[in-house]
Amino acid sequence: MDSVHGYTSDKDAYLARLRRVEGQVRGLQRMVDEDAYCIDVLTQVSAVTKALQTVALGLMEDHLGHCVAQAVTEGGPLADEKLREASDAIARLVRS
Amino acid sequence: MDSVHGYTSDKDAYLARLRRVEGQVRGLQRMVDEDAYCIDVLTQVSAVTKALQTVALGLMEDHLGHCVAQAVTEGGPLADEKLREASDAIARLVRS
Amino acid sequence: MDSVHGYTSDKDAYLARLRRVEGQVRGLQRMVDEDAYCIDVLTQVSAVTKALQTVALGLMEDHLGHCVAQAVTEGGPLADEKLREASDAIARLVRS
Amino acid sequence: MDSVHGYTSDKDAYLARLRRVEGQVRGLQRMVDEDAYCIDVLTQVSAVTKALQTVALGLMEDHLGHCVAQAVTEGGPLADEKLREASDAIARLVRS
Repeated sequence: MDSVHGYTSDKDAYLARLRRVEGQVRGLQRMVDEDAYCIDVLTQVSAVTKALQTVALGLMEDHLGHCVAQAVTEGGPLADEKLREASDAIARLVRS
Repeated sequence: MDSVHGYTSDKDAYLARLRRVEGQVRGLQRMVDEDAYCIDVLTQVSAVTKALQTVALGLMEDHLGHCVAQAVTEGGPLADEKLREASDAIARLVRS
Repeated sequence: MDSVHGYTSDKDAYLARLRRVEGQVRGLQRMVDEDAYCIDVLTQVSAVTKALQTVALGLMEDHLGHCVAQAVTEGGPLADEKLREASDAIARLVRS
Repeated sequence: MDSVHGYTSDKDAYLARLRRVEGQVRGLQRMVDEDAYCIDVLTQVSAVTKALQTVALGLMEDHLGHCVAQAVTEGGPLADEKLREASDAIARLVRS
């Protein structure tokens, strides 16, 4: 029953953004297929990466404000676990 | 006539990788649609970002080894322009 | 009076790490001064960047577990402000 | 006798920038020592990381324009080796 996450209220916005990313990736395939200039392909790859990063940062903010905040309010070992898990995810984002 | 870029000989491999990225992005949409746990969505976003980064690094290596190397061999202002353009693209990659 | 932050209990460890980073940056100066090979300088720059990133991720984890967790427990507008501020700092880390 | 690298002509500028980075790292130590607010420390860490990135991108551009361009002009296996080495260094920068 608990399928409510931080991003649930913005689900449609996230889906719209991810569909846009999918369109950008298909655009990349078209560019490669039509022998577009390497640098133009690279510029577009950077744009997709940035779009994904924005999605990730939004998800992280929602996650901190909901799942993590709720666990912290309740306290106990779950709070620590959630904080650790969020920190690990932040590290993966920073390093990717 | 000059539609031959650094990545042309590997075109199929790049297209295959980009189709895999497209599949991953559709997987992300499914996860969001099915209310997957935020951290799992984030882990998958990091995986897609890394896959795109690998594509970009491959394109850059091919570009340096072909377009830039050829311009440098011919020398003149085009060589400088290509070097500058490649450096700018590297900067965009590093900062994205 | 409230000079207790997330990292305070590990202050000595952070200072030791930052002194090591300072030593690495001085090592970079020595390399440039002695005309070290560009790629070797670049490898060392990447090492320093990674060391700083590790410091940043540690600070962020401590910050979430202390300042942010405390504000969230107390609730109210300060909690929202702290969450927003942390999210902005995460975005700066991811984009830098 | 061959101690001339891409960055050699800008050596003083690189040294000046690295000394500024060293000063920033010492500033970080001071902030931690004086219990500065975590987010302010993090903002400063991001600034140092960006400064190092700028140094790295400058070194890479100089390296491509000198060492790599020279090897490419001369051709042969050394050209391939230099291109591969540069691509690996770019990958380390992008992933750090």
